[in-house]
Amino acid sequence: MLTSKHQHLQAEPCPVARAVDVIADRWTLLVVRDAFDGKRRFGDFQRGLGIARSMLTDRLRNLVAAGIFEVKPASDGTSYQEYVLTSKGSQLFPLIVAFRQWGERHLFDEGEAYSQLLETASGEPLELMSPTTVNGRTIRPEETTVRKVR
Amino acid sequence: MLTSKHQHLQAEPCPVARAVDVIADRWTLLVVRDAFDGKRRFGDFQRGLGIARSMLTDRLRNLVAAGIFEVKPASDGTSYQEYVLTSKGSQLFPLIVAFRQWGERHLFDEGEAYSQLLETASGEPLELMSPTTVNGRTIRPEETTVRKVR
Repeated sequence: MLTSKHQHLQAEPCPVARAVDVIADRWTLLVVRDAFDGKRRFGDFQRGLGIARSMLTDRLRNLVAAGIFEVKPASDGTSYQEYVLTSKGSQLFPLIVAFRQWGERHLFDEGEAYSQLLETASGEPLELMSPTTVNGRTIRPEETTVRKVR
Repeated sequence: MLTSKHQHLQAEPCPVARAVDVIADRWTLLVVRDAFDGKRRFGDFQRGLGIARSMLTDRLRNLVAAGIFEVKPASDGTSYQEYVLTSKGSQLFPLIVAFRQWGERHLFDEGEAYSQLLETASGEPLELMSPTTVNGRTIRPEETTVRKVR
């Protein structure tokens, strides 16, 4: 299945579609979110998410195959394996923040509590993330065009 | 199903998880991407994506129910219906850009062509989007903490 998925990806010139094919799965995204929160071990992901072990095994295998996690020996010298975000995986941070900020703004009732992502040093929430031009100006969707390659 | 999904969402204090539950589906995201490219009609989405009509019907229904699309009469006076992004839907732009930018950087071979999102006026690609502090400083994941509500 990985092979046919890879072949499919090779034919697809849209980066959105390729990224969606790799990462837009509920459990996959929640595992990556938890990795940004510092989780590294199978049992920690499993308990935090309440996911079936077989499904977590499947998602972790795919995340390693996709180069998003790498498997390392436990940092404390025990025999556990740890799943650590690679550089490619760490660069999913804007994507997770984009999910978070859209959720915060649109999926909670007024006054309803939600978990917040804060700058540790200041305790402040992050700025709302927006696409910008190379000059740093916020750009609206209607000011953009997709140049297709086929 | 919508009811039970809604009840599930109500219990979930993490905005990432709520957003993932609403939008992290392959076809849903590709329909939203195409809406940002200017598509509005069933037939245009259907032909562009090569999606089965029943699946597109399902995704459009969910997108309307979630308040991401609204249904409008055709802008040209014909009897077609158009699916138009609401304000809530338009605010998915950073999410689609995050998928695109991660895909561009990590899912194409060197020299391989991909469709590009450009500022129409200048023809320039957008800046790489990054989470920032309220002061505009780019922030790395390890400088952040999630404050949980339970």
